[in-house]
Amino acid sequence: MEILIINGPNLNMLGKREKSIYGEMTLNSINEMLLARAGGRCELEFFQSNHEGDIVGMIQRTDADGMIINAGAFTHTSIAIRDALLAVSKEFIEVHISNVFAREDFRHKSYLSDISKGVISGFGAMSYAFALDYFLEQKK
Amino acid sequence: MEILIINGPNLNMLGKREKSIYGEMTLNSINEMLLARAGGRCELEFFQSNHEGDIVGMIQRTDADGMIINAGAFTHTSIAIRDALLAVSKEFIEVHISNVFAREDFRHKSYLSDISKGVISGFGAMSYAFALDYFLEQKK
Amino acid sequence: MEILIINGPNLNMLGKREKSIYGEMTLNSINEMLLARAGGRCELEFFQSNHEGDIVGMIQRTDADGMIINAGAFTHTSIAIRDALLAVSKEFIEVHISNVFAREDFRHKSYLSDISKGVISGFGAMSYAFALDYFLEQKK
Amino acid sequence: MEILIINGPNLNMLGKREKSIYGEMTLNSINEMLLARAGGRCELEFFQSNHEGDIVGMIQRTDADGMIINAGAFTHTSIAIRDALLAVSKEFIEVHISNVFAREDFRHKSYLSDISKGVISGFGAMSYAFALDYFLEQKK
Amino acid sequence: MEILIINGPNLNMLGKREKSIYGEMTLNSINEMLLARAGGRCELEFFQSNHEGDIVGMIQRTDADGMIINAGAFTHTSIAIRDALLAVSKEFIEVHISNVFAREDFRHKSYLSDISKGVISGFGAMSYAFALDYFLEQKK
Amino acid sequence: MEILIINGPNLNMLGKREKSIYGEMTLNSINEMLLARAGGRCELEFFQSNHEGDIVGMIQRTDADGMIINAGAFTHTSIAIRDALLAVSKEFIEVHISNVFAREDFRHKSYLSDISKGVISGFGAMSYAFALDYFLEQKK
Amino acid sequence: MEILIINGPNLNMLGKREKSIYGEMTLNSINEMLLARAGGRCELEFFQSNHEGDIVGMIQRTDADGMIINAGAFTHTSIAIRDALLAVSKEFIEVHISNVFAREDFRHKSYLSDISKGVISGFGAMSYAFALDYFLEQKK
Amino acid sequence: MEILIINGPNLNMLGKREKSIYGEMTLNSINEMLLARAGGRCELEFFQSNHEGDIVGMIQRTDADGMIINAGAFTHTSIAIRDALLAVSKEFIEVHISNVFAREDFRHKSYLSDISKGVISGFGAMSYAFALDYFLEQKK
Amino acid sequence: MEILIINGPNLNMLGKREKSIYGEMTLNSINEMLLARAGGRCELEFFQSNHEGDIVGMIQRTDADGMIINAGAFTHTSIAIRDALLAVSKEFIEVHISNVFAREDFRHKSYLSDISKGVISGFGAMSYAFALDYFLEQKK
Amino acid sequence: MEILIINGPNLNMLGKREKSIYGEMTLNSINEMLLARAGGRCELEFFQSNHEGDIVGMIQRTDADGMIINAGAFTHTSIAIRDALLAVSKEFIEVHISNVFAREDFRHKSYLSDISKGVISGFGAMSYAFALDYFLEQKK
Amino acid sequence: MEILIINGPNLNMLGKREKSIYGEMTLNSINEMLLARAGGRCELEFFQSNHEGDIVGMIQRTDADGMIINAGAFTHTSIAIRDALLAVSKEFIEVHISNVFAREDFRHKSYLSDISKGVISGFGAMSYAFALDYFLEQKK
Amino acid sequence: MEILIINGPNLNMLGKREKSIYGEMTLNSINEMLLARAGGRCELEFFQSNHEGDIVGMIQRTDADGMIINAGAFTHTSIAIRDALLAVSKEFIEVHISNVFAREDFRHKSYLSDISKGVISGFGAMSYAFALDYFLEQKK
Repeated sequence: MEILIINGPNLNMLGKREKSIYGEMTLNSINEMLLARAGGRCELEFFQSNHEGDIVGMIQRTDADGMIINAGAFTHTSIAIRDALLAVSKEFIEVHISNVFAREDFRHKSYLSDISKGVISGFGAMSYAFALDYFLEQKK
Repeated sequence: MEILIINGPNLNMLGKREKSIYGEMTLNSINEMLLARAGGRCELEFFQSNHEGDIVGMIQRTDADGMIINAGAFTHTSIAIRDALLAVSKEFIEVHISNVFAREDFRHKSYLSDISKGVISGFGAMSYAFALDYFLEQKK
Repeated sequence: MEILIINGPNLNMLGKREKSIYGEMTLNSINEMLLARAGGRCELEFFQSNHEGDIVGMIQRTDADGMIINAGAFTHTSIAIRDALLAVSKEFIEVHISNVFAREDFRHKSYLSDISKGVISGFGAMSYAFALDYFLEQKK
Repeated sequence: MEILIINGPNLNMLGKREKSIYGEMTLNSINEMLLARAGGRCELEFFQSNHEGDIVGMIQRTDADGMIINAGAFTHTSIAIRDALLAVSKEFIEVHISNVFAREDFRHKSYLSDISKGVISGFGAMSYAFALDYFLEQKK
Repeated sequence: MEILIINGPNLNMLGKREKSIYGEMTLNSINEMLLARAGGRCELEFFQSNHEGDIVGMIQRTDADGMIINAGAFTHTSIAIRDALLAVSKEFIEVHISNVFAREDFRHKSYLSDISKGVISGFGAMSYAFALDYFLEQKK
Repeated sequence: MEILIINGPNLNMLGKREKSIYGEMTLNSINEMLLARAGGRCELEFFQSNHEGDIVGMIQRTDADGMIINAGAFTHTSIAIRDALLAVSKEFIEVHISNVFAREDFRHKSYLSDISKGVISGFGAMSYAFALDYFLEQKK
Repeated sequence: MEILIINGPNLNMLGKREKSIYGEMTLNSINEMLLARAGGRCELEFFQSNHEGDIVGMIQRTDADGMIINAGAFTHTSIAIRDALLAVSKEFIEVHISNVFAREDFRHKSYLSDISKGVISGFGAMSYAFALDYFLEQKK
Repeated sequence: MEILIINGPNLNMLGKREKSIYGEMTLNSINEMLLARAGGRCELEFFQSNHEGDIVGMIQRTDADGMIINAGAFTHTSIAIRDALLAVSKEFIEVHISNVFAREDFRHKSYLSDISKGVISGFGAMSYAFALDYFLEQKK
Repeated sequence: MEILIINGPNLNMLGKREKSIYGEMTLNSINEMLLARAGGRCELEFFQSNHEGDIVGMIQRTDADGMIINAGAFTHTSIAIRDALLAVSKEFIEVHISNVFAREDFRHKSYLSDISKGVISGFGAMSYAFALDYFLEQKK
Repeated sequence: MEILIINGPNLNMLGKREKSIYGEMTLNSINEMLLARAGGRCELEFFQSNHEGDIVGMIQRTDADGMIINAGAFTHTSIAIRDALLAVSKEFIEVHISNVFAREDFRHKSYLSDISKGVISGFGAMSYAFALDYFLEQKK
Repeated sequence: MEILIINGPNLNMLGKREKSIYGEMTLNSINEMLLARAGGRCELEFFQSNHEGDIVGMIQRTDADGMIINAGAFTHTSIAIRDALLAVSKEFIEVHISNVFAREDFRHKSYLSDISKGVISGFGAMSYAFALDYFLEQKK
Repeated sequence: MEILIINGPNLNMLGKREKSIYGEMTLNSINEMLLARAGGRCELEFFQSNHEGDIVGMIQRTDADGMIINAGAFTHTSIAIRDALLAVSKEFIEVHISNVFAREDFRHKSYLSDISKGVISGFGAMSYAFALDYFLEQKK
């Protein structure tokens, strides 16, 4: 089993700025934590982009069996990413580091939630970890 | 550490009806799974009620350090439960068995999300498990 | 065949107050009228409560084959009762004594109508009678 | 006592098309059922039209003591029929064969409900029958 | 194969008034153009009415295999025509001479679009021609 | 100069019903009052219909120089009448016997006002008279 | 009988600016026209102010039997003027020189219409004249 | 004269939690303050519940002449309490300890205000005191 | 301590008009009642104006320690008064003689409530008295 | 004459996924069909991108005389593409393979429709063909 | 060239209150800064009022060639000022000291922006300076 | 001090198309004008892109002390750019060449305004110049 972890715009800034909101972990350290957690039970592929089109393309061409997606700002604006996910119809999980429901109104609406397996929001790096655990559970 | 797991209206029916939506697990079997997962690392208390007032009361009087709450229908209608949570101001996690964002519009609004630590929705019994994991992680 | 007749909050006050709106009949006299109308062709069970949770519980545990529900104010606010009805998925009819569409705006929305067999509103005690007639017809 | 039964647009198609929604009964067979149910206790007049203006005209000139109206699509769009009913101010009942509350949003709004005696929706041909019963009860 | 071309209110005025918006072609010349385009490959029937009820009736009784409908103003107001189309459930195409999306807001909403095969808007007489071409293609 | 006075649905009932709202005058007596007021200075043509399509047709074929239109309920629902008025682009005045702004919300919106010369609402038969006066003034 | 004619903000600019919208007549010439029209059959008092508070005060203290009010911009924003009119509860007519329904959306809402005798909009100086005629008619 | 003071959900927590918002006073100390203020001039009955149904029941059966109601969260969600108050139609006053208008949007809407004698919001324990004073004044 | 009592537009009409709504008391008699109630324990200053700008000016220049404000219609429309209150940031209480929540929808919104100490609405002259009592209590 | 055919995000997936919705044709086979249909009467240029910015750039630099645009998801979200089309102000046609009006609500709004020549939606590959036919007709 | 600088309600309080929001500068010091900046290249006239009517009047009678307007709260509520600006149709610039878009929602809507030359918001006294610079540039 | 000037989609077209709206200046000539205005007092960096992702990236990596941003269409649609600005939390100014408040409704909403220092809209190339002046002032 292979899992693709997609991070959207500005998530490359994790641990570099706004630490009070997003914590100290960098995206790299999250990825390493996930690799450790997977412990070889599944392959992980990592992808980050600030470009909507690149994320669309990655979703289209991946061979992964499932996806963990933190689309960042695109969560609330991108029908193109929704359509890519509809096109490939693979199981994916929507994750957020911060609790989006405690932030601005426009972050309460997601173009991805209703077609996702489920949503995990607010647990920092653990949001990704729980999503990974889900796929590992499924594999058993 | 003690964690209180609160289940709202109709969750006593889990595994008895609508199995296509909610799966085969009963609330009892979920609770047992959680006990096993906790493995003695923290105490778990379980509470289910169809009465908004009883849930308010339970939140007010519990000595638990954290809560995992699947308020069911009350998620979308109960300001009283929100107020009880504000009053005791303990960390809690909002969980849902099904993916509420894929259901009727009136299930997309929650009176609890913005004051919760985070939200986990759509993973069946695993939604509770991930929430428990969060508390176990914190304890370390 | 057994039919459960559920009356929600304040319907215990029928015939005691606001007679200009709801008429002179008490809930008891309505129930007696329904028993007479059933004439032994089916069993009737009566339940009234001002507690949302009690109504949820009654719906969960009844053995009735069908239900006639005047949820009163809960019609417009209770997703919990909706969920209980979805959980047991028995045929039920939504009835109202007064014509709810001629009253305040917030009474025009029902959480029950779209999952009911049908709606009967505005005929006083006859609203219940017609609902009973429906079940009696079905039985033939 | 004379009762006028008005059927709006497309109800002449009953039993001919969309049987899965509206059932097998034709408008004629419903009318015959109603005549049988009335059993001579009151006179029944039947009127169907696809023309809003014709329905307005019929309401204006009828000598009936009461009306049973299934205005079909005009329920949701015709202020003219509402005005005709206001002008003659006779008691009338709004009926629907299907449960309009379980259909498209634009069918949830009625220009007739708030000025009607009451609403009966979702019982097939029985919707008309219950409305007739109401008038027969009143006559006693 | 027979195709019915329905034109709604005021389309009999084509080429007589508001030429700057609708062009010089009369409804007759459009019909003749369509006959020429069909070239005997299918039969065409033409119907224009300013009466919603007449259009409903025509849809109910036609033997045509498909329909091209420019319902004009009724596009935005007539649930009755929608219901007639639902009742006969034949394939139909919604056409408009002008680009309705560039006009008043109330012309952006259609009661017909979502149940049509498709929509062609803004190409003058060619809107009808393309619709006809679709049916001719299908026939092949 | 010729002026066409168009009355929409239910205005044939004037003076026959709902006298408390619309007064004692019949449509005939209003027409006679207008003829007297015109005093031969212009020709008057009178038209009343409960059919939207007939009003559309009358607007299309009249030779009148101006129109006084009380479209009744169609004021609030008919884009077809609006389109007919746009098509012939003659000066017309929207009149109402009662003060529509003091009635139900859905009577506050008009599909005709913004393309009319002006609106006169609330003066009973005098609403028509003032509209006629406008045309007589223009003629001078 | 005495009639007070109130003109709100910017109506002192009539005939001085924006002649293409409001015409050539000044407020003075309108007032003179009205005096001529009244022809001594009733007294006319004229008041113009750009101050909401002054208009409120004038309505409070006038001895006039009726009022003709063109509140200009205050029509759409002043609850204070509405309250003054409610307080004195004299018959008044709302007039507008231009057709407000053909202008910006925020000019379609009036705080005065529903408590007025009626509304006359779009006839230039004639809007005032018709309002005066109404009062003169009443006096007969 | 007897006055019933009803406190809704979470008001039993007063003075125990969230002291920065609600102050130091407990519900008991407020009640004692009210008894002292009444000084025997009227009888006071106290009722607090976290259960909507219990509050409905209390309103139905009380013999009090008037009520002071701080329905807490139920203010914004309970049509059942509104209906109970409509059923007994006794004078009651809506009170709030904090200024609800300075809090979340969903606290600005009340199902009780429009049928209350009046509203007092924001004065801490004094909100109750002023309401009591009103009843004492009335008694004089 | 000095308290300024501000009354907005039309409150000078109290006791002169609309007695059924606002009662028999004039503004003078309310002021005298307040003076008597204060009994020298604090100074009272009274100000009434129909001019928004005058109220803004009064708030800017007063030396009072607190304010009781019945802004009347300006409550619902004046951001300028809100801004004046924000600028001086003194404690003030919003009062209303009638129950504004039982009146037109546009009276349910206040530009002052959320920045006030609290709101008292519906108790006639007593609304002012309770507000005064609050300040007297504070002084102790 | 040269026509540019622009396809937006995910349209490169045509014929590869979701065949039940979009049919079996690939984007390549559509392009070939269009080339055949053009038959040398005009030049065709093809462009597909998942990047909003690339589509903006293509519109800016093309020498084509007209455009056929299926912007896919960008139809509903991209003001940038709208602005590019406004900047070059060339005639273009909006096309959709599926009937967007029969899909999710957010697909009913287009940022392109009102500035396009017209819209063709729902005819599969034929949507492009009809658009091409329009340009070919114009050329004659 | 003469430029009129208009300041609306509460701007006379600048530098006296709420210094954290509006800074230390008084309106006088801003005016002096502007005079210095103009350096005799154009005449400046200054006007401040808390009265909407006075601002309307000033706009009507000024001989200035252009205006810089900080209407304060009236920006969001005054159609009368808009109408005055429309009446004189001189070029004006809307300025704000604070960034209105970062404040309450009701400050995001302006009745002046769409008819202004442009908007400058958030730069303290520099907002006026930039507006003046615009006029000085134009003069060159 | 270094200032980064970011221009969003289609601003590379300035002076090439739509000159009636945007004027004759090209983006190059604006940049040169700004360099001249800066006169060496600060360094300027220029960046233009039609790609949202590129703008996000530029904001992330710039060393500039402040930014002047004309995000064009992305102003109204890009939460990603907002998030990048939040991440780096540098002072920036939102500028627009045309007056966006005088254009389509969807251009009135900005995802950037509330987190910007301020907004300058409508002054052509001068909008940039004023923004630059602000930074130059600050530097003093």
